Amino acid sequence: MEPDPSRALADLRALRELTEDEDGAQRLCWTDTWVRARRWFDSRLDGLDVELEVDPAGNKWLTLAGERPEALVIGSHIDSVPNGGWLDGALGLLGGLEVVRAAAAAGRPPVTLKLVDWADEEGARFGYGMLGSSAASGSLDVDKARGLADRDGNALPEVLAARAVELERMAEARASLDGALGYVELHIEQGPVLDDMNLPLAVVEGTVGVERHVIRFTGQASHAGPTPMDKRREALSAAARLLLELRDAARDADAKFTAGRLITSPGVATIVAETAELTIDQRHPDGEVLARLLDGAREAAGRIAAEERVEVAIEKLWNIPPIAFDAALRDIAAGVIEELTGSAAPRMDSGALHDAAEVARAGVPTVMLFIKSLGGISHAKVEDSADEDIRLGVQALAMVVERALARI
Amino acid sequence: MEPDPSRALADLRALRELTEDEDGAQRLCWTDTWVRARRWFDSRLDGLDVELEVDPAGNKWLTLAGERPEALVIGSHIDSVPNGGWLDGALGLLGGLEVVRAAAAAGRPPVTLKLVDWADEEGARFGYGMLGSSAASGSLDVDKARGLADRDGNALPEVLAARAVELERMAEARASLDGALGYVELHIEQGPVLDDMNLPLAVVEGTVGVERHVIRFTGQASHAGPTPMDKRREALSAAARLLLELRDAARDADAKFTAGRLITSPGVATIVAETAELTIDQRHPDGEVLARLLDGAREAAGRIAAEERVEVAIEKLWNIPPIAFDAALRDIAAGVIEELTGSAAPRMDSGALHDAAEVARAGVPTVMLFIKSLGGISHAKVEDSADEDIRLGVQALAMVVERALARI
Repeated sequence: MEPDPSRALADLRALRELTEDEDGAQRLCWTDTWVRARRWFDSRLDGLDVELEVDPAGNKWLTLAGERPEALVIGSHIDSVPNGGWLDGALGLLGGLEVVRAAAAAGRPPVTLKLVDWADEEGARFGYGMLGSSAASGSLDVDKARGLADRDGNALPEVLAARAVELERMAEARASLDGALGYVELHIEQGPVLDDMNLPLAVVEGTVGVERHVIRFTGQASHAGPTPMDKRREALSAAARLLLELRDAARDADAKFTAGRLITSPGVATIVAETAELTIDQRHPDGEVLARLLDGAREAAGRIAAEERVEVAIEKLWNIPPIAFDAALRDIAAGVIEELTGSAAPRMDSGALHDAAEVARAGVPTVMLFIKSLGGISHAKVEDSADEDIRLGVQALAMVVERALARI
Repeated sequence: MEPDPSRALADLRALRELTEDEDGAQRLCWTDTWVRARRWFDSRLDGLDVELEVDPAGNKWLTLAGERPEALVIGSHIDSVPNGGWLDGALGLLGGLEVVRAAAAAGRPPVTLKLVDWADEEGARFGYGMLGSSAASGSLDVDKARGLADRDGNALPEVLAARAVELERMAEARASLDGALGYVELHIEQGPVLDDMNLPLAVVEGTVGVERHVIRFTGQASHAGPTPMDKRREALSAAARLLLELRDAARDADAKFTAGRLITSPGVATIVAETAELTIDQRHPDGEVLARLLDGAREAAGRIAAEERVEVAIEKLWNIPPIAFDAALRDIAAGVIEELTGSAAPRMDSGALHDAAEVARAGVPTVMLFIKSLGGISHAKVEDSADEDIRLGVQALAMVVERALARI
C-alpha cells in the first residue's frame, strides 16, 4: 500500500487548528470540543468505502471490510488532557486513517482492517484512564466508575449519558474486540529517550506495571504559636518524609515514582496540618520489583506514621500489571524500523499506559510504535515532534500493518 | 472592687449557646453570627453607666468615665476562627466586662476605664490577623489589606464596607489609643505549658517574633510514566526537603516552625508536580535568633532549588518582631497570681500573637494573663478550661486592673 504521510500531517494540523487555544489542545473527552473533533474526523471519511459505528462504551470504529471478517485493528484516541499537545492520541488516529485510506486504495484486504478511536484514554476529568478500551478489554470496574465525579461535582454516569453512553451497558463493548487478530498503535514517546538517542522510531516491548495509591496521614490541628514542637502531631512532615523516602527507593530500583498531589487541611499557615493526603504512583516493568516497592511504601508509611505519632490510611486508586506485547508483532515492527532508518530498532518499555495495554490484556496480539518527542515533553502545548518523524511514523505504521496483514 | 466571676462564666456560656454549632464556635469576624454576638454583648450592658462606640476600624469601645480622661484599657475580641472554641477571645472580653461592672459599682475610678472588643483578631477569613488592633496601633498595611479576598473571592474592602467599616479610613482608629495609660488582656494559653505544670495562671512576658513567608518552587510538569527520574524538575520534593530541614533547624534553635499549607499544581497523580507552594511560619522570642532562622530558610530554599533544578521565589506574608510587655505591669500581674495561687507566678512568652502585641507596639504599657487550656488545645470545639480557672482568671484580671488603676 502507498500511504501519503503528508496528508496525515495536514490532518493533524487541521485538527490542531480546530481544537487548540492559547493554552494547548482542549479535546477533553465528553466535552463539546471533543465532539467537534470527532465530527471533523467523520468529515475526513468522504469517498472512503468504510463503515462507522460507535460501540456501547463510546469507542468509534471504522471498518474496511476484507476477505475475512476477522480484523486487524489500528487504534488510538482523539481525546486530550486539558491544555494538552497536538500529537498525543491524534497522531495514532490520523496516521491510522491514512493507513486505512492506503489499504482501501490497494483493494480489498485479506482480512478486515479496523481503526478505533478509543473514548477517554486520558481519564483527565474523572481520573479513570483508558475508560473505553477497558470496557472493550473486560477490565472496566463499573462500580468504581459509577461513583466518579469531576471537580465540579458532575457525575461520570450523567456526563456519559449526555453523550449517549450508558455506564451500565459499557461492558457490552467487549464484543468490539471479537475476532481481533492483532492490534497496532502509533504514538509519540512522551519521554526523552529517543530524543537523547537522536533516533526517530522505537518498538515498544510492553507497558510497565503501575501501582497508584493515596496515602492519608491524620494528626491533630493545633496553633502554630503555643504548641511545643515535641507535642505536635503533624501530618505534613510525615507525608514529606514518605515521599522523599519513596523517591530514593524508586531510584535505587530503577523504577519511576511520582507524588503528583499533596493536599493539606485545614491548610492555614498558622495551624499545624491535621491531614496530608498524598498520591503516589509507582511504575516498573517487572511485576515482582513493583510489588516489592509497594510493600516498601506500606512499611515506610506505617513506620513514619508511628514515629510522627499520626494515623495513616492507604487506599488503592488504580493498578495494572506489567504487560508484554506480542513477540511476533514486535519483530515485525523492529524489522520495519531497521529498514526505514538503517539502524537497529530501539526497544523500550512504555512508562505511560496506553489503550494498547488494555487490548493486550484482552489477549489480542499487540504492538506499539513510538516516534521521538522533542524534549520529551507531552501533555503540554509545547509537545512536538519533527515533521519528518511524523511522516516516518505513519510510513512505519503502514508497513507494520501491511506485513501483519500478510502474516495473518 | 468586687467582681462576680461566676457571672462572667454565665456570660461565656450564654455566648457559647448563641454562637456555637455542632462543629464549634462560628463567630467568624464580619459574619452575621459575629454581628449577633456583638449585639448580644450590647444587651449585657443594661443598667451600666457606660458609653459605647465603634471606631473607624470596627473596634467596639466601652467607656466608664473616671476622674481623668486618660484611660486604662482592658481588651480582647469576640470573633473566633471557624469551628473554634468558646473561650479564645471571649474569655478576655466577658471577663473584662465583669471587671467594668465591678469598677462601676465601686464608684467613679481615678482614671477612665475602657473595654475594647477588637475587630478581626483571628484574621481567619482574609489572612490578616489583628486587623482592628493594627489599625489602632498604626501598623496596618492598607495597601496589603486592599488586595485581600476570601476563598470565595469576596474582597476584604467590600466585606468591611457591608459592616460600615471603610478600609481607607481604618487608620483613623489610631486616635482610639490616645491617652491610653496601660492595657491588660486576659486569654487562654492555647498551649499545654500550664496544663503540664498543673498551674492555673501565668503572666505573659511578651509575644514571640514571627516571620511568615510563602515559598514557591517551580519545576516542569511532565508525565509520570515516560519521564526518567533524573530528568525531572519536580517541585514537591523540593518543598518536602525544605520543610523537613527547617523543622530540624527550628528544633535545634528551640524555635517554633509550622508548614501549615502546601499546594501542588497541576495536582494530578500522574503528572510530575510543576509547582509546590509552601507556607512557613517561624517564631522565636529572640529577634536575632529569628533573623538567623529566616536567613537559614532563604539559604536552604535556594540550595535545595538548585539541587532539584527548580526555580524558587520567596514572598513575605507577614512578620512582627518579638515584643516585650511592660515590666511594672508584669510585676503587678505576677504579684496577683502569687497571691491568688500561693505559688510563684509562671512567666512565659506567648507563641501566639494577640492584640496586646499591637497595643504594646504603639507604646502603651501592656501585660497579659493566661489561664490554663485543658490539653493545650485551642481553635477547636474541644477547647476548654476548668470553671475554677476561668473564675480565677477573671478575679486576677480585676486585681491587676485595680492595682494598675491605683498606680497610674
